[in-house]
Amino acid sequence: MAFLKRVLPVVLALILAAGPVRALDIDLSTFTLDNGMQVVVIPDRRAPVVTHMVWYKVGAADEPEGKAGIAHFLEHLMFKGTPRYPDGAFSRIIRANGGNDNAFTSQDYTAYFQRVMKDRLGLVMELEADRMHNLVLTDENVLPERAVVQEERRERIENEPGGLLAEQLDAALFLAHPYGKPVIGWMSEVAELTREDALDFYARHYEPANAILIVAGDVTPEEVRTLAERHYGPLKNRRPVAERRRAVEPPPNAERRVLMRDARASSPTWQRQYLTPAARQLPQREELAMSLLADILGGGNQSRLYQTLTVEKKIAAHAGAWFDADMLDYGNIGVYAAPNGGVAVEEVEKGVDAVLAELVANGATQEELDRSRNSLIAGETYLLDSQESLARVFGVALTTGQTIEDVMNWERDIAQVTLEDVNKAARTAFDARASVTGILLPEAAIQ
Amino acid sequence: MAFLKRVLPVVLALILAAGPVRALDIDLSTFTLDNGMQVVVIPDRRAPVVTHMVWYKVGAADEPEGKAGIAHFLEHLMFKGTPRYPDGAFSRIIRANGGNDNAFTSQDYTAYFQRVMKDRLGLVMELEADRMHNLVLTDENVLPERAVVQEERRERIENEPGGLLAEQLDAALFLAHPYGKPVIGWMSEVAELTREDALDFYARHYEPANAILIVAGDVTPEEVRTLAERHYGPLKNRRPVAERRRAVEPPPNAERRVLMRDARASSPTWQRQYLTPAARQLPQREELAMSLLADILGGGNQSRLYQTLTVEKKIAAHAGAWFDADMLDYGNIGVYAAPNGGVAVEEVEKGVDAVLAELVANGATQEELDRSRNSLIAGETYLLDSQESLARVFGVALTTGQTIEDVMNWERDIAQVTLEDVNKAARTAFDARASVTGILLPEAAIQ
Repeated sequence: MAFLKRVLPVVLALILAAGPVRALDIDLSTFTLDNGMQVVVIPDRRAPVVTHMVWYKVGAADEPEGKAGIAHFLEHLMFKGTPRYPDGAFSRIIRANGGNDNAFTSQDYTAYFQRVMKDRLGLVMELEADRMHNLVLTDENVLPERAVVQEERRERIENEPGGLLAEQLDAALFLAHPYGKPVIGWMSEVAELTREDALDFYARHYEPANAILIVAGDVTPEEVRTLAERHYGPLKNRRPVAERRRAVEPPPNAERRVLMRDARASSPTWQRQYLTPAARQLPQREELAMSLLADILGGGNQSRLYQTLTVEKKIAAHAGAWFDADMLDYGNIGVYAAPNGGVAVEEVEKGVDAVLAELVANGATQEELDRSRNSLIAGETYLLDSQESLARVFGVALTTGQTIEDVMNWERDIAQVTLEDVNKAARTAFDARASVTGILLPEAAIQ
Repeated sequence: MAFLKRVLPVVLALILAAGPVRALDIDLSTFTLDNGMQVVVIPDRRAPVVTHMVWYKVGAADEPEGKAGIAHFLEHLMFKGTPRYPDGAFSRIIRANGGNDNAFTSQDYTAYFQRVMKDRLGLVMELEADRMHNLVLTDENVLPERAVVQEERRERIENEPGGLLAEQLDAALFLAHPYGKPVIGWMSEVAELTREDALDFYARHYEPANAILIVAGDVTPEEVRTLAERHYGPLKNRRPVAERRRAVEPPPNAERRVLMRDARASSPTWQRQYLTPAARQLPQREELAMSLLADILGGGNQSRLYQTLTVEKKIAAHAGAWFDADMLDYGNIGVYAAPNGGVAVEEVEKGVDAVLAELVANGATQEELDRSRNSLIAGETYLLDSQESLARVFGVALTTGQTIEDVMNWERDIAQVTLEDVNKAARTAFDARASVTGILLPEAAIQ
């Protein structure tokens, strides 16, 4: 039960690893139940296990005003029980059957997943279908869980200077769009979320037509279809699925900076994010050119940022870059660096700026492109090797407006990206007007 | 038909002039009609004219999500007509009777006012009461007016670098609260506002119990009561007045900066705002200590900022400060400076910081306090001399959670503010974590 945040480089790197994947060899099937629930089946016969996921096309960016955090809070509450499986029976049954389960919430989706032996797939579907419509909430089980979420916020945000800074950066990057609001919610609003708020959000968004079932593992599409029709088929949509309409950002027109001083930080960090289109708004080749650009710039120890700042100039302990566009409405490309002891943050920033300027002015080399392309392909291959991340890649794509074809064609498309594509991406990506720069200093706040 | 913005120092100075006023000599009356409409009568017998204002306790910060600008747009549409007075008859009739009329929208209120000969007061009430419930909107009169508002936005914001920067600063200062959203609305949302949106907002907020009638001029309370009961008395509230509940800001914890480069700007400007409580959340003596602090710091040519930056160091063409807390939920104290030609913005910023640090460390002098107090009292006296601004002071106070007593006791309360009150305000007001700094440079944007 976690929430995903577009945050610190380190965290982002992990999330990025779940980006769209090429998947030429996957014998994927997809079909739709009569109630509108999409089903995706991904065969993986290496072991007699299955990963079962239900992805709802709703996340924190779909929350009503004043109810920040309700999507993630509801994710927690989904484990409370139903008339048939009350009092936390869900996870108990999964565990008693040798499986494990979890859930996560992002700005755009809320997903629930279980990993079990293949012969338990029907049981898992029975449980998951049951809680899609039959959740029972009482003040007795809601209010203590709200305290749990508040504590989660304290641990991950309030007591983590990096988490606090990330929240500020999102708020600074997004003026109108709800991505500026943290997934876990502002404490002031989380503290007032009620059982009724959770049930309203649940009734509005938890419908078969708003959900995607993804099953990866040692099963055939026919087996999945039979089980899905038996368990999910009887669910009727109680109301039409709400349109996902969020505020549009005004044209970005200012360089923003956020400086946080926090004595709890262990060392200074510097980062900058630039707003970009979302993956679904870009031709995949342009999106992949951005991924390659980020990798050339700051993916690993051979990247320009690491080589220049850490190896040559020795002013940064580490430095890197990321690109994240697996969101419904906007993406971002970012760079970060951690100054070496005794080096001023300003010097590191100048160093990053010089690397960026050089790349924009003179472009990357074919050698860099080839190395980064191989590196991204290797990363995706590694990702594909995990049943869970394989399933997850499709879940993220389908809940953020991308298609199965985007994922399936990833390897073909990345092979087609040219040096000019990457250099063009470099010339458009780093628009200062669309940027926010964040600095965290390990010192007492100035009052 | 205008919208008020918390924006550039120059604009703010004008708005500030409408702050709470002491008013010991005013023989003010207030009473409430049976339908909950509050009435305030302010005698002013110098000429046979009256100022008639209706203030609705609703503004841009009360707009539903995704409908930014609807409060201000509705203000425009209120002139379109009713079955009884169709097709813009309102303003035509006022003008034909020798009067003038206007309206304005802020984050917290929407107000309509007319100035007419005293014997026309009943006519004005008849018109204003009629449009409180009987507005008729059609696509034919709504859509062209929407284009007018869009053009207003282009003129005041899109084509005004200072307006664009102000919008960015508000967005940076407020992470969760709707004050971060411009009163006129984001263009993308304004462009999609509909007749139905306007009518929904109208039906929700335009009720007698949500309105305050203020009449200033050559009338007696009895005359106003008789007319108000005749014209406004018959209006029934169609639904309970909606509670004004806005998002709460998370604890401010980062210094924010916004840099805008715009070739259309004529010269560089620098400013910084600090978030403060709203007037209603502070004891009036503390609020007035903040006003005095801002005046000592940057009110006029004798102020510390002007004397130091413009007269002594000769690095700024002008410099000043403001304090604005006449809002329902938050206020702000700000400083600004315009560098002289050839002087770097950074130098001016350092100059302002030095002035602030000196004031915080060593405090103001009694002489400064006395001068600023006299200056504020003189300003208020000047303000009181205008029938319209006199009425307006009460309208602002009553729609932002302040009381008639706050206004009436202003002069008594400002007399009681001590040097230690001001110095305490200085020590608490300039919290870097609650600040946003804005810089506008007259140069091409860096892409």
